[in-house]
Amino acid sequence: MSVKDLTAYSISRHKPYTPGEQPTILERTIKLNTNENPYPPTPQISESILAQITDLNRYPNSSADDLRSTIANLHNVHPDQVIVGNGSDDILNLCVRCFSDRSKSIGMLDPSYSLYEVLGSLQGTEVKKIPFKDQNFTIEPDIISQSGTNIFFLTSPHAPTGRIYENTVFSSILKSYLGILVIDEAYADFAPFNAIPLLAESERVIITRTLSKSYSLAGLRVGYALAGKEVISILNKAREVYNVDRLAQIIAQIALKDREYFDETTRKIISVRERVYKTFIDWRWYTYPSGANFLFTQPLNYSETSGRDIAEDLYKYLNDNNVFIRYFPSNQLTSSFLRISIGKEEEMDMLIELINTWKIQEQPK
Amino acid sequence: MSVKDLTAYSISRHKPYTPGEQPTILERTIKLNTNENPYPPTPQISESILAQITDLNRYPNSSADDLRSTIANLHNVHPDQVIVGNGSDDILNLCVRCFSDRSKSIGMLDPSYSLYEVLGSLQGTEVKKIPFKDQNFTIEPDIISQSGTNIFFLTSPHAPTGRIYENTVFSSILKSYLGILVIDEAYADFAPFNAIPLLAESERVIITRTLSKSYSLAGLRVGYALAGKEVISILNKAREVYNVDRLAQIIAQIALKDREYFDETTRKIISVRERVYKTFIDWRWYTYPSGANFLFTQPLNYSETSGRDIAEDLYKYLNDNNVFIRYFPSNQLTSSFLRISIGKEEEMDMLIELINTWKIQEQPK
Repeated sequence: MSVKDLTAYSISRHKPYTPGEQPTILERTIKLNTNENPYPPTPQISESILAQITDLNRYPNSSADDLRSTIANLHNVHPDQVIVGNGSDDILNLCVRCFSDRSKSIGMLDPSYSLYEVLGSLQGTEVKKIPFKDQNFTIEPDIISQSGTNIFFLTSPHAPTGRIYENTVFSSILKSYLGILVIDEAYADFAPFNAIPLLAESERVIITRTLSKSYSLAGLRVGYALAGKEVISILNKAREVYNVDRLAQIIAQIALKDREYFDETTRKIISVRERVYKTFIDWRWYTYPSGANFLFTQPLNYSETSGRDIAEDLYKYLNDNNVFIRYFPSNQLTSSFLRISIGKEEEMDMLIELINTWKIQEQPK
Repeated sequence: MSVKDLTAYSISRHKPYTPGEQPTILERTIKLNTNENPYPPTPQISESILAQITDLNRYPNSSADDLRSTIANLHNVHPDQVIVGNGSDDILNLCVRCFSDRSKSIGMLDPSYSLYEVLGSLQGTEVKKIPFKDQNFTIEPDIISQSGTNIFFLTSPHAPTGRIYENTVFSSILKSYLGILVIDEAYADFAPFNAIPLLAESERVIITRTLSKSYSLAGLRVGYALAGKEVISILNKAREVYNVDRLAQIIAQIALKDREYFDETTRKIISVRERVYKTFIDWRWYTYPSGANFLFTQPLNYSETSGRDIAEDLYKYLNDNNVFIRYFPSNQLTSSFLRISIGKEEEMDMLIELINTWKIQEQPK
């Protein structure tokens, strides 16, 4: 039999997730395309890590007990309400594996994080993509409740717009929707509030978090979920026993406990985000108020060119100048926009300078 | 709806894998129960790691290009014949997800690594467990060929016995079996030869490896598979994009490249294994010649007690003395045996001393 004949049905039809481009980093490259944090993680890590290297011959703690306690303390929940993953992608995969199958479908809003669909396809389950009806990206609880899905994924703050949602929206969904509601809070640390109070309202809500953004640990792969104890114990059934390595468990704890460094870097990113937001608004670029570490903006100029062409043109122009941002041309709601991660102050200054140069070139003759 | 009603069918029936006990490490604890390496990983790691910490805010290379090149060089294959996982458990999971589904079943020998069954159950696919017919743990190619399975998992050297198999056995299977043959070589670096030459014989063979044993990196979670390019590209479809973190990619490369340290620690373990083997044989304990970093032995004494009770008694006696080994009472072929990982020379001396004390106590009056 050929390898193709031997391949599982769901895999043979499966289209994997496409990550943001990882360009070769030159000295002057500005990387604003994958919502990484521009600052290194807390310097306390280096001080603690060397002692751990010599213990790497031993398996990690399979339930990441100390790390889960640290997370539970931070959010004031019980450690049994916490599960840790090899990145929040691992956690999202567990949600799909545990709460969807042939007769239990997945729901998501379109556009949002495209990985939900990828994981559903991998599981071989139906994924219902519900389009936002307009550019306000409003969530309509009724449409979610009537979706007939078993599990629904919401990104809050939303990606790629960065817009925030009030918890009343989620409460309203939980009142009428009968399935599991996953609130993917990858960017919540950059927002003025979060959905954690909802854990007290329902046993069917899962809040996912990552240390990749606000804790500057994209390279480490640590994410976690908060939920009721029953949901966590089910997710644990599908988790790989040693899914989070020793160094990751230790580094994550150090990063979570250094609140001063977290506050300082988060505050800087929020402050730079607000300044760049004002610049874009001054330029009359349609830009979403953001609760995340990125801005979603529609570059405009005075020519007759279509919004899509302008966005693509600026994307390429910046790319040619070693400034990497993200462009999503495939959806009509996003094709005239660009998603720009918030870098360091000086990186954003260079970005603005470059865009100013581009704008002059693009002015009608 | 209750959380239970919302749980996927395969998960609601799923029994997770039980890892070896991870005891609290006291100063005098001897841990010989999970086949870890008693030596720390190469000291070259500490020298290189600190510079990497500050880059942890950036995502890892999603295809682990440098690490795959290092592995490809080591085994003299093309980098496209290599996939890297978050431990070899991640790789085994990809094999199950890509090559089994409702109509494509999984095969394994019983006893062998129990994770194959766990992963099949998680996928909701049928797992055919073929019992070894006797205590020689001979592999019968015909029975595998006639199993009607789509993918078959073999552990070589075998676990928990440590016995090795000639490559002619695998060649013979590949001639008549039509499915994917996974040869799990977690322990192959402690054996006199390996199955890598088979990659040239068939597009349907997958060889899995781990850095947890011979490279002293159980705490880090890095494993890999070698196979034909087509199989690797299919496994990549199900792989999480950032499944191996930055530190793991770098540490793995350093460990793989320090051949001197690898040779030295592997040689020590093999030499200690052979000495302990001879001791057990001198005691007339039935012990399998081992190509792994553990021994599987049947403790005997002069009393009338059943083999099972003796094994359990010694297991508990050692446990009470802070020496942790592994006991598998559930299978008739293994219930009178104990699996003992090879520790440092002085740890094995203490083990032998303790067993000698136990033997005197157990002598008939």
